[in-house]
Amino acid sequence: MKILLIGATGKLGTAVRETLSGRGHEVVTVGRTGGDLRHDITDPAQVTALYQAVGRVDAVVSAAGEVPYKPVTEMTPADYQAAFRGKVLSQIELVRQGTSRIAERGSFTLIAGVLSREPVPTASAASMANGAVEAFVRAAAIEIAPQRVNAVSPTVFTESLADYESFFPGMPSVDLALVAQAYVRSVEGAQTGQVYTLP
Amino acid sequence: MKILLIGATGKLGTAVRETLSGRGHEVVTVGRTGGDLRHDITDPAQVTALYQAVGRVDAVVSAAGEVPYKPVTEMTPADYQAAFRGKVLSQIELVRQGTSRIAERGSFTLIAGVLSREPVPTASAASMANGAVEAFVRAAAIEIAPQRVNAVSPTVFTESLADYESFFPGMPSVDLALVAQAYVRSVEGAQTGQVYTLP
Repeated sequence: MKILLIGATGKLGTAVRETLSGRGHEVVTVGRTGGDLRHDITDPAQVTALYQAVGRVDAVVSAAGEVPYKPVTEMTPADYQAAFRGKVLSQIELVRQGTSRIAERGSFTLIAGVLSREPVPTASAASMANGAVEAFVRAAAIEIAPQRVNAVSPTVFTESLADYESFFPGMPSVDLALVAQAYVRSVEGAQTGQVYTLP
Repeated sequence: MKILLIGATGKLGTAVRETLSGRGHEVVTVGRTGGDLRHDITDPAQVTALYQAVGRVDAVVSAAGEVPYKPVTEMTPADYQAAFRGKVLSQIELVRQGTSRIAERGSFTLIAGVLSREPVPTASAASMANGAVEAFVRAAAIEIAPQRVNAVSPTVFTESLADYESFFPGMPSVDLALVAQAYVRSVEGAQTGQVYTLP
């Protein structure tokens, strides 16, 4: 398949790219600062430009989402707006604009995360965003068939524990290789409307 | 208790007002077009003005949230933004700005809805918004203790079936009286971070 990968330069994006490429797929990478194409998907107009640039693809997979981390009482309305644009609207636009552009039976795989179900302090914007993405996926799936849309919702990556263990005390981590497998499951499988929680 | 009720003029708000008043609470109602106070909480500055106007309250309960309904392919980025402002950011602001203003052990009760878990066509913005609110509630709860925050997440109201049955085919409805009881449970109980799914 020809697969469009957004957020290809991060730890997750790198693992997803290597796994999908290793399975024989042609992966076109997109990032703000690196990748085959340079687009900032938090701007809906750049999502349009991205689809025009890449042409027809069989799958769109996203490993991109940025949200601010602060205590609730230190957040501002602009912070929650930034989380919405940075992780929710950006990924919604990939789907909304993509339905008319990707393959007839193509798929979208979005990134959410454990904070939707297991909160930690300072992460209320991330929780909000992940909950929004997961619910959107369930809703969009029933409208866009036979195209498909799923979300991958991992806990902290084992490879990131050195940096984030204090943020997720006692929470099981998940190896990036397993997270990448969830993307394979979404792209090559036939399910839709699923939220793959990991581990 | 002195309770601030936002969205007091709708079917749900009316039921919540009657139930809380019937239990001896002093309910101050807020709406854009009706109620004791007139504020549009989709504007963060009006949330500030609302809290300044009402003074100290023991509980904030919300029955207000507006989102557009359209097929995914007919939505625009502005529609999803409107859903975010109309149901997510508005209620987040009630909590964020309220923590420094309501009683030390006061509570917030937000409104979400069944579409976060049981989607129907044209409701992707509502699903997104409800998922966002529910995840935010879980996250905010662990930060704002001993203040509390819960969400009520009902299916279609029995009293609204005449208008919406075709939208929710075969889905169980819930009587408004039961939904109002969930608000009582949140306000008078001691739980926090809960999403009360109904029925």
